[in-house]
Amino acid sequence: MSLLAGMLVADFTRVFSGPAATQLLADYGADVVKIEDPRAGDDARVFGLGDNSAHPAGGASASFVALNRNKRSLGLDLKSDAGRAVALRICARADVLVHNFRPGVIERLGFGYDALSAANPGLVYCEISGYGRQGPLAARGANDIALQAHSGLMSITGEAGGAPVRCGSAVVDLHCGMSAVAGIFAALLHRERTGKGQRVETSLLAAGANLMTYFYQEYWLDGTVPRAMGSANALTVPNQAFPTADGAAIIIGSNDEMWLRCARTLDAAALDQPEFRSVEGRRANRVRLVELLSGITRRHSTDALVAMLDAAKVVAAPVRDVGRAAEDPQLHAIGQVTEYEAEGRTLKSVAPPFRLGAAPPVPPRGPPALAADTDPVLRQFGYAPDEIAALRAAGAFG
Amino acid sequence: MSLLAGMLVADFTRVFSGPAATQLLADYGADVVKIEDPRAGDDARVFGLGDNSAHPAGGASASFVALNRNKRSLGLDLKSDAGRAVALRICARADVLVHNFRPGVIERLGFGYDALSAANPGLVYCEISGYGRQGPLAARGANDIALQAHSGLMSITGEAGGAPVRCGSAVVDLHCGMSAVAGIFAALLHRERTGKGQRVETSLLAAGANLMTYFYQEYWLDGTVPRAMGSANALTVPNQAFPTADGAAIIIGSNDEMWLRCARTLDAAALDQPEFRSVEGRRANRVRLVELLSGITRRHSTDALVAMLDAAKVVAAPVRDVGRAAEDPQLHAIGQVTEYEAEGRTLKSVAPPFRLGAAPPVPPRGPPALAADTDPVLRQFGYAPDEIAALRAAGAFG
Repeated sequence: MSLLAGMLVADFTRVFSGPAATQLLADYGADVVKIEDPRAGDDARVFGLGDNSAHPAGGASASFVALNRNKRSLGLDLKSDAGRAVALRICARADVLVHNFRPGVIERLGFGYDALSAANPGLVYCEISGYGRQGPLAARGANDIALQAHSGLMSITGEAGGAPVRCGSAVVDLHCGMSAVAGIFAALLHRERTGKGQRVETSLLAAGANLMTYFYQEYWLDGTVPRAMGSANALTVPNQAFPTADGAAIIIGSNDEMWLRCARTLDAAALDQPEFRSVEGRRANRVRLVELLSGITRRHSTDALVAMLDAAKVVAAPVRDVGRAAEDPQLHAIGQVTEYEAEGRTLKSVAPPFRLGAAPPVPPRGPPALAADTDPVLRQFGYAPDEIAALRAAGAFG
Repeated sequence: MSLLAGMLVADFTRVFSGPAATQLLADYGADVVKIEDPRAGDDARVFGLGDNSAHPAGGASASFVALNRNKRSLGLDLKSDAGRAVALRICARADVLVHNFRPGVIERLGFGYDALSAANPGLVYCEISGYGRQGPLAARGANDIALQAHSGLMSITGEAGGAPVRCGSAVVDLHCGMSAVAGIFAALLHRERTGKGQRVETSLLAAGANLMTYFYQEYWLDGTVPRAMGSANALTVPNQAFPTADGAAIIIGSNDEMWLRCARTLDAAALDQPEFRSVEGRRANRVRLVELLSGITRRHSTDALVAMLDAAKVVAAPVRDVGRAAEDPQLHAIGQVTEYEAEGRTLKSVAPPFRLGAAPPVPPRGPPALAADTDPVLRQFGYAPDEIAALRAAGAFG
């Protein structure tokens, strides 16, 4: 039996952080009811550039497909009394609720923690906000890139002396989602022992700070304000991308032994110089070493270079584009790519990032089209056909 | 009482991913015994550039201080029979074990899952590897930047057409640590119900793929291979950093209403042009719009610009350096900065990224000096003074 079998998740989330969190709960067997505005649904459904019409779930974007498998979609107009009444019935029976509305919005809708927990004291209630629920910026709008900037992450990403650069994927959003998952599992552990639910809070601000924790620590201890260094870092040399005949590869010579193996593997005569033999020496001669090494790495293909260095026990890796990364045989070999059938086609998706030996994920189902599961969900919660008709007439479903 | 009070964690981890995971368990009350080589300990102790001698924990690096609070350090030479015997006694009583050795190493030391779980069936055994435990790359050395490259994250980070750039913090390592935490809590939930432990696996490869999940999805659906775009992204315009009089700020005009508010707030005559009024129009006229907007944003200070846009409900944020980010009043207002006394000084650290309403973290204690807790830990595990002396003579403590 799956870990979360029999658990009901009332999912009010949209876009990235929240859907990433609830998808993981769905992967481990929870019944995730995604409550969406019946007019347009989750904003992420329409993200994307090209023609999505052939995509599953009614032409959903790749982002939506990536983060909403194993869920059911219930279309509810939360601005209507009838829609809110349906959502309230679901919340009264839910084991977990997750939302990422701005602070204050969910209370105005009538689904605040105090109201719901009074009726359902076992509820684990997870709030994901931009800047947290208190403080001067509580009401400010936020997204991943805003928090990459606010947290200082952007200031250390980019070319030395160049413009600030985005970390290419939504790392703050997705780290926030995983933090929410950890907090929800922690609260479920507490509930298993005590029968009591609780509020779980996280925010993009908290997740961004967590990703920056060791830089803040250095600032607090020493006043250090680091700067972007391209692909390099300040600590060790070499520790960055080098050009190859057909792209680029990472080479790490973090300690003296690894550097010596690297130098002897690639070109001992050119590289094994006394001034490069210590960490401090390599740092002091960074520019010359990187230039010298680049001249040598350019002679090799990326794959050949990485294979040579790997054989010599030097940490190395190819800088790969998204296509090659998605097709990586190693990623498939460790079961991180799941293939499944949905809507008559084969879909691939990235499996959860942790694996439990005794509690595997459920077999994947594709993401839901907007409001696709409204009627079955209503019947599951005890609504008779005439009640459903009355709710529809009252505008519950938009 | 704290959530994990009474739980013992045998912590064989070092550097980033593992210590981040076990610190969170320590923050929630687990007794984390960090088993370190008595000669040098966790490699991360000596990371850093400047003079660490005034740092806590015997002059530990900022990275070590950031990721090892609330733990105790036991110095054990695992290459000696006596050292391994002590570690085995701890593992036999542990609730959770976490390690990030390369695949095969911990089995050779005698602490493999099969051996330990036979003697301690309730053990939650968490393995963090670079590329997973199977497949062609299982034995390859890995670190954060290698997986930023291997996963494709680097290929979408940097200036358009420029060299690949590092995402400035160790996002793969830290996301992997949080995935491990989520998996450990999931396994503890399973154990609370069944009494049984299990193996929990994660890897930098799995964490990197998780951070790239929506890009892989797009590739699998459409064959799209995205490229770096500086601070911008492909979906919407504006959605990037703009220069200000004293730095840079993020401005998001992701939908047409937000763009209109942005244009009218900053300079309606210049910006509210018909060809910019739709998402497609702004994308088609990206270069001209960004140039025009940059000319206007340069007239304002970062803080004034963000305040104007925020008041108009346009998502905006300052691009801040690490110092300003660490001193952020909002970060302090939501309790994400913990101040505590250790070794006669006040330390600050970043609090866990999720908060549990009914189970707060324990009050922080500073990180341990290498092997500082060896004798008290040994006494806790039932070793008498003469046994400790015999173990010392047999080389258990280096």
